Amino acid sequence: MSRSPGRKQENHKISRELFVLTYGALVAQLCKEYEKDEDVNACLDRMGYSIGIRLIDDFLARSAVKKCRSYSETADMIAQVAFKMYLGVTPSVSCNSVTGNEFSLILDKNPLVDFVEELPAERASLCYCNLLCGVIRGALEMVHLAAEVSFLQDRLKGDAVTEIGITFLRKPEDRRHRRNK
Amino acid sequence: MSRSPGRKQENHKISRELFVLTYGALVAQLCKEYEKDEDVNACLDRMGYSIGIRLIDDFLARSAVKKCRSYSETADMIAQVAFKMYLGVTPSVSCNSVTGNEFSLILDKNPLVDFVEELPAERASLCYCNLLCGVIRGALEMVHLAAEVSFLQDRLKGDAVTEIGITFLRKPEDRRHRRNK
Repeated sequence: MSRSPGRKQENHKISRELFVLTYGALVAQLCKEYEKDEDVNACLDRMGYSIGIRLIDDFLARSAVKKCRSYSETADMIAQVAFKMYLGVTPSVSCNSVTGNEFSLILDKNPLVDFVEELPAERASLCYCNLLCGVIRGALEMVHLAAEVSFLQDRLKGDAVTEIGITFLRKPEDRRHRRNK
Repeated sequence: MSRSPGRKQENHKISRELFVLTYGALVAQLCKEYEKDEDVNACLDRMGYSIGIRLIDDFLARSAVKKCRSYSETADMIAQVAFKMYLGVTPSVSCNSVTGNEFSLILDKNPLVDFVEELPAERASLCYCNLLCGVIRGALEMVHLAAEVSFLQDRLKGDAVTEIGITFLRKPEDRRHRRNK
């Protein structure tokens, strides 16, 4: 395939509706394929991971952000820059542990479920948006931050908000970037 | 699930990269599932159709377009309004038949293949973006326009451009909307 070199930096936005419906088709397809919700969730997470490890380059190039110096900064960056850039929403961030390595991204509105009213009764354990967890996990891994990412609350399951939990797996001391190293 | 009534009309845009990579994950998943390219193509078309029949409401609401009075106007509307709105690109349109019911949408750049270099050798018959054909077909059907939609050329297969062919299946006389009917 021939491809024009140098992608233009403008015109990076598309309509969310098409994405949301395409994502819905993907989840529906996986539900056809896998009987167990856990298998669908795992597959979405794996797919997201593959996306995250590619998306990070795009993110770093377009955001031109500086290196984060703490887990807290990293969590804020994900919420305020990455979510805003890719999904057009900005979750609020809370720190959930005294050790400072557990955070929650709290979404009052989840743009991925615009057309989803509720989960079918037989899919009660489905983490519909689990792709997002994989994306975050994959992207973080590419900047040498191991993390566990999972849904802690989900409005699709009747919770008041949608909450994504991020647990960084290394201590802050291990990963601090030093300019004059 | 609780959902706030009345979706906001702002903030309808998301980053194309996330969509493109998610779409790639969908195609890859179908390629795992189906051995034959034709089955993947058919599945993408079906998925697209399901998306199109839902997306048309969003399109009509947001575009506030008037009814089209000819196939030619309809093809222009798809290219200049719908593609622009949902994918951020505007294909050129050409009429391919003296009967005036066959059109081509020609894309110099296909936003869905940003991260795809070329098709694998064993997937030479894959219509990677076939979802789009289904979307167009489904959306047209919801405004009572039967059409066949397929890729005629594809840059992923070495063609100079990507070309989507639309053949309207009824005569213009049958579908002309009359104000004072």
